[in-house]
Amino acid sequence: MRKGRFVAEGRLRTGTFVGDSVHSKDRSWAVSDVRLAAPVRPGKIICLGRNYADHAQELGHKLPEKPLLFYKPPSAVIGPGEPIVVPTSSRVDYEGELAVVVGRRCRNVHPTRAEDVIFGFTCLNDVTDREAQGWEQTWVRAKGFDTSCPVGPWAVTPDELCFPLEVRTYVNGQLRQIGNTSMLHIGISEIIAAITAFMTLNPGDVIATGTPSGVGPLHPGDVVKVSITGIGELENPVQ
Amino acid sequence: MRKGRFVAEGRLRTGTFVGDSVHSKDRSWAVSDVRLAAPVRPGKIICLGRNYADHAQELGHKLPEKPLLFYKPPSAVIGPGEPIVVPTSSRVDYEGELAVVVGRRCRNVHPTRAEDVIFGFTCLNDVTDREAQGWEQTWVRAKGFDTSCPVGPWAVTPDELCFPLEVRTYVNGQLRQIGNTSMLHIGISEIIAAITAFMTLNPGDVIATGTPSGVGPLHPGDVVKVSITGIGELENPVQ
Repeated sequence: MRKGRFVAEGRLRTGTFVGDSVHSKDRSWAVSDVRLAAPVRPGKIICLGRNYADHAQELGHKLPEKPLLFYKPPSAVIGPGEPIVVPTSSRVDYEGELAVVVGRRCRNVHPTRAEDVIFGFTCLNDVTDREAQGWEQTWVRAKGFDTSCPVGPWAVTPDELCFPLEVRTYVNGQLRQIGNTSMLHIGISEIIAAITAFMTLNPGDVIATGTPSGVGPLHPGDVVKVSITGIGELENPVQ
Repeated sequence: MRKGRFVAEGRLRTGTFVGDSVHSKDRSWAVSDVRLAAPVRPGKIICLGRNYADHAQELGHKLPEKPLLFYKPPSAVIGPGEPIVVPTSSRVDYEGELAVVVGRRCRNVHPTRAEDVIFGFTCLNDVTDREAQGWEQTWVRAKGFDTSCPVGPWAVTPDELCFPLEVRTYVNGQLRQIGNTSMLHIGISEIIAAITAFMTLNPGDVIATGTPSGVGPLHPGDVVKVSITGIGELENPVQ
């Protein structure tokens, strides 16, 4: 199942995407006739840093022993097609990622039961102000500016996916990142266990699982696309 | 005006507190007959680190040049009287703070207009796992565990307050912290300007303005109370 949100006839709606159509209550639209919105309104977005060995290496870091966690704020979320407005900075990077959408309120989830709390998966672009990240220990500015969190195009339930998944990022049609979730340093079940060891997750919360190598800068006029096998494509222009 | 949330007759309600009564729609209760809840459900909670010189000094830090920002997650919020459940850690500290409740969606607020976006003020206890803070750069575990964010007892609008305010924290009735908002390193208007320079604030968002010196550990069985002149008292038992 592919669940998401979209605007049709001036109203934001929640629906199920099947082929080229989207269904909401007892109505349907062609996907080409609606405007997609971010598929969820997360209460919190928890992200993993340095969770692919090749990306940790390209930034000159070791792999963390425990998951390196940080937040993006809900106010940073935008949907497919919405512009990423880059702040004044010497470098603002794309970071394509697989994101988990939480389906159940949960705490202290054992890794063997982590699947039970997952609603589905989506694409996320962890847009990062690399200059701010250089001086700001807690990464609030670096990871939290408005429009720094494109999410979409929809959330796909696990039964429709065949892991491992390939995560690709393109800028202006050129391939810049290829990752495979088989190379995640800390796997999805362990991430959920580690987070819920101290914190309650709620339905709609999002977990971004980290980015592979190949990160690089975005400039106004660029178009950036995160594409994940079996999920779809999340494309955003840059302003 | 004092606005808050409370449970009466089994239902969570929003109301206005006047003297010993609380009014919701066309009904009233004695405050002693209701159970107070956290006055807001923040979309995000943004906190200031090292914003009183004496506290920065006691932790061996310089004052930051730009506001040191970090988050507490909405899942950490508890109301007055609810237990703080301390995690396994060599030290978990109270940090009594004045918190701002945002009243309006806003971005790029000039310091001279910051008052316009404030709904009111409340007490917040930025409970901190000092052990996790020692190794975790981004403070997600240190500041984000469940129950680490007591807020209340209600939000008081600015017209009822006379700044500067005195912030006091008591453990088991003993005074441990005294701060005065006149000693804030970065003032409230400048904080709001700094945050909204890159991020949209929404109604109900909370900004914790930092803690004065005198932080110290909590242990199961303790009762911790944050008290601010003109606002009230936020008391929580520790488990």
